Amino acid sequence: MVTTPRLFVDAPLSEGAELILPREQAHYLVNVMRREAGAPVRVFNGRDGEWQTKVAEASRKGASLQVETRLREQTGVPPLRLCFAPVKKARTDFIVEKATELGAACIQPVITRRTQSERVRTDRLLALATEAAEQTERLCLPEMSEPVSLERLLACWPDGERLIFCDEAGDGEGAWGGSQGRARPLADMLQGETDPSGPWTILIGPEGGFDDAERTHLRSLPFVRAVTLGPRILRADTAAVAALTLWQAALGDWR
Amino acid sequence: MVTTPRLFVDAPLSEGAELILPREQAHYLVNVMRREAGAPVRVFNGRDGEWQTKVAEASRKGASLQVETRLREQTGVPPLRLCFAPVKKARTDFIVEKATELGAACIQPVITRRTQSERVRTDRLLALATEAAEQTERLCLPEMSEPVSLERLLACWPDGERLIFCDEAGDGEGAWGGSQGRARPLADMLQGETDPSGPWTILIGPEGGFDDAERTHLRSLPFVRAVTLGPRILRADTAAVAALTLWQAALGDWR
Repeated sequence: MVTTPRLFVDAPLSEGAELILPREQAHYLVNVMRREAGAPVRVFNGRDGEWQTKVAEASRKGASLQVETRLREQTGVPPLRLCFAPVKKARTDFIVEKATELGAACIQPVITRRTQSERVRTDRLLALATEAAEQTERLCLPEMSEPVSLERLLACWPDGERLIFCDEAGDGEGAWGGSQGRARPLADMLQGETDPSGPWTILIGPEGGFDDAERTHLRSLPFVRAVTLGPRILRADTAAVAALTLWQAALGDWR
Repeated sequence: MVTTPRLFVDAPLSEGAELILPREQAHYLVNVMRREAGAPVRVFNGRDGEWQTKVAEASRKGASLQVETRLREQTGVPPLRLCFAPVKKARTDFIVEKATELGAACIQPVITRRTQSERVRTDRLLALATEAAEQTERLCLPEMSEPVSLERLLACWPDGERLIFCDEAGDGEGAWGGSQGRARPLADMLQGETDPSGPWTILIGPEGGFDDAERTHLRSLPFVRAVTLGPRILRADTAAVAALTLWQAALGDWR
């Protein structure tokens, strides 16, 4: 099987345009994928759809592509944001990769009280998301936001957006008397919403979960839906993938 | 936050029993977790539920536990098996970890024509699954089966078991005229089954997917349900997690 490389580019795309690739992409195409002049390459830029191109020049010095025909019209992804507390590097990377594959529109690191906050390098995460978008046939990159504290995130909440609070400490006993009562299975909650249209956010806590004050505050907010993800305690990265999947299947573009 | 270590042990569990830990577990408990005599430890063996114990002896030579009281009755997991084509080591490890967290009863490597079949070390994978079970509050380990060819898997299919064929090459056009017609979104298919009780298997292909002969054969079998997982092409590990999640939410123990 020979696969056609697929690259995200920043430039406008139209028939006949020439694209000079940045150094790293040129290196990947010429030295890693070993493509020569004339080889087909697919490109997308998040605005103009996906295009067929061919390699115009490929040398040690660089590479360029000639844009040929449009393969797909531009499409977006549903209005779903993933907010997650950064965990260990490998699992944070994993969350970003999977959120991109699963069609999150925006990825937002959130600092909670128990977050083992190593510095989050959003430029590195965006590079990971770009690679995932290239491999997964997405036509756009997710927006990668700078880290924000949970307090600030909740204080400036957008009108009409709902927040799915994946409460891994669960309760099942209604001990947290917030406005939403006890946590429900995520799929049930989504089915039970009377008007599920509009933007949604999924919030995943750090290893060790949210602290009591954070949980009480979250549960008291009218836009928060506290949910459970089954009887086992999922790691943060697993919870992120599971929640994104259930939302896409119920309200997103998997229907 | 001080967490109580949780260990899988092989021995029978009952009040007052003494457990001499194998060398590696003793090392983990004493040298990594730095637990001393009297420290609490939770244990499970897949048969007798979960028990509170305390460290009876902890030294350079080894460690033993004294079993105290039962914390939880034994429970199982729903009848769900994951069959997957081994991929690169890190992603195979990931699939096994996540399948354990998501409550798969059995994990079965399957060799397909496009499988980049490095040798699968099931003993190593079982160690990974054990660690995931310890961390995720499972009361049993998944069964870890030896690799089998796709051909043989399908030839000896158990009566009454259904197979979810995650057809990432999708079709959406009904080109594959098997008995089940075109692939449907997984969540829809599960909802549409008239009698969904009984065991299910999820089948995930290798990077590059199944070849045409495999797909045609799969589609022709009466127990196969061909499904799609959204408009993006998911990596094998992502597809495994997504499919396990949707099954648990619809038919498993997440309800």
